[in-house]
Amino acid sequence: MPQGQPETVPDDGMTTRQRRNRPLVMVHTGEMKGKSTSAFGLALRGWNQGWPIGVFQFVKSAKWRVGEESAFKALGTLHDETGQGGPVEWHKMGEGWSWTRKKATEEDHAASALEGWHEIARRLSEQRHGLYVLDEFTYPLHWGWVDVDEVVATLRDRPGHQHVVITGRNAPQALIDAADLVMETSKVAHPMDRGQKGQKGIEW
Amino acid sequence: MPQGQPETVPDDGMTTRQRRNRPLVMVHTGEMKGKSTSAFGLALRGWNQGWPIGVFQFVKSAKWRVGEESAFKALGTLHDETGQGGPVEWHKMGEGWSWTRKKATEEDHAASALEGWHEIARRLSEQRHGLYVLDEFTYPLHWGWVDVDEVVATLRDRPGHQHVVITGRNAPQALIDAADLVMETSKVAHPMDRGQKGQKGIEW
Repeated sequence: MPQGQPETVPDDGMTTRQRRNRPLVMVHTGEMKGKSTSAFGLALRGWNQGWPIGVFQFVKSAKWRVGEESAFKALGTLHDETGQGGPVEWHKMGEGWSWTRKKATEEDHAASALEGWHEIARRLSEQRHGLYVLDEFTYPLHWGWVDVDEVVATLRDRPGHQHVVITGRNAPQALIDAADLVMETSKVAHPMDRGQKGQKGIEW
Repeated sequence: MPQGQPETVPDDGMTTRQRRNRPLVMVHTGEMKGKSTSAFGLALRGWNQGWPIGVFQFVKSAKWRVGEESAFKALGTLHDETGQGGPVEWHKMGEGWSWTRKKATEEDHAASALEGWHEIARRLSEQRHGLYVLDEFTYPLHWGWVDVDEVVATLRDRPGHQHVVITGRNAPQALIDAADLVMETSKVAHPMDRGQKGQKGIEW
């Protein structure tokens, strides 16, 4: 990133400092890897600022994000013990704030995702976190499990200073339009093109 | 990322396992933020695998990456004290493996970048790290401070199982051609377009 002279200065009645410190809705979308990893990289910065970090994982495979989860839980523990950085909460769809069934149907997943979103909306109203990572949250939106207009309205009206980053492919246009920052990843080359499957430490 | 069935299976004489575990050269390039943050997100996975992580920062501003640096140093300390994860080394161009002058000229920066690359090449030959993050390393390549053909040859011939991720804009074509994975970030929307400058916890 450049040092950052804005291209335009809007006539919005805010001072540069007020505008600078406006909380952001960020969307990382696109076809290529890098959407979630960059959200977690961003969360390292928030953690270092002492913000309470809330990760809400809308993916099902237990293998995914184990590296990030392990590292962020370690950072959260470090905060609790030493005061360095911020506290960390890590929640998974279908765990904790929802039920888990052995044979989950699509309806279960949809209900679980919606339950998750309602929990996030509650936390936003209570100003529980400085940064929310809604990992792979575009999928329940794309599939219609969670209403995108309700999400956009809740994000727009959230109180205080809470940043939100949402990752995943197929981000709905209404979400993109509502976001302050939208990053799109695209593929130039990928090992799978050469017949190479995912490996530990790289894909999870 | 999908669960990962490769699109083609190459006739390279390797088993799926051998191919899967081949060490990777990854390049994160493009116009938008997310190149470095996703490299650091990736490094969380490597750390969790217990890999020795080496970060080599080819940027000059002290403000950049302070969040990531602080978090990774904390994770490195955690490793040293408890054995969780892997050890972490964090090096900056112009520090440690090079000199620092009060009034650095472009020649100083060029020499410093080259010195940094030589240190990285030494470490690659000694198999010192499991994952190397060469942050903003495309710039010294783009500016001709470090010879891209030498870098490509060194990466191609590196021994053992060492992953390398290189970030920055304007990645030279020879580097892109040599990479196993190339991720490009592009901008859909950015707060600076709306007159908002960078803020702590988000940009650093």
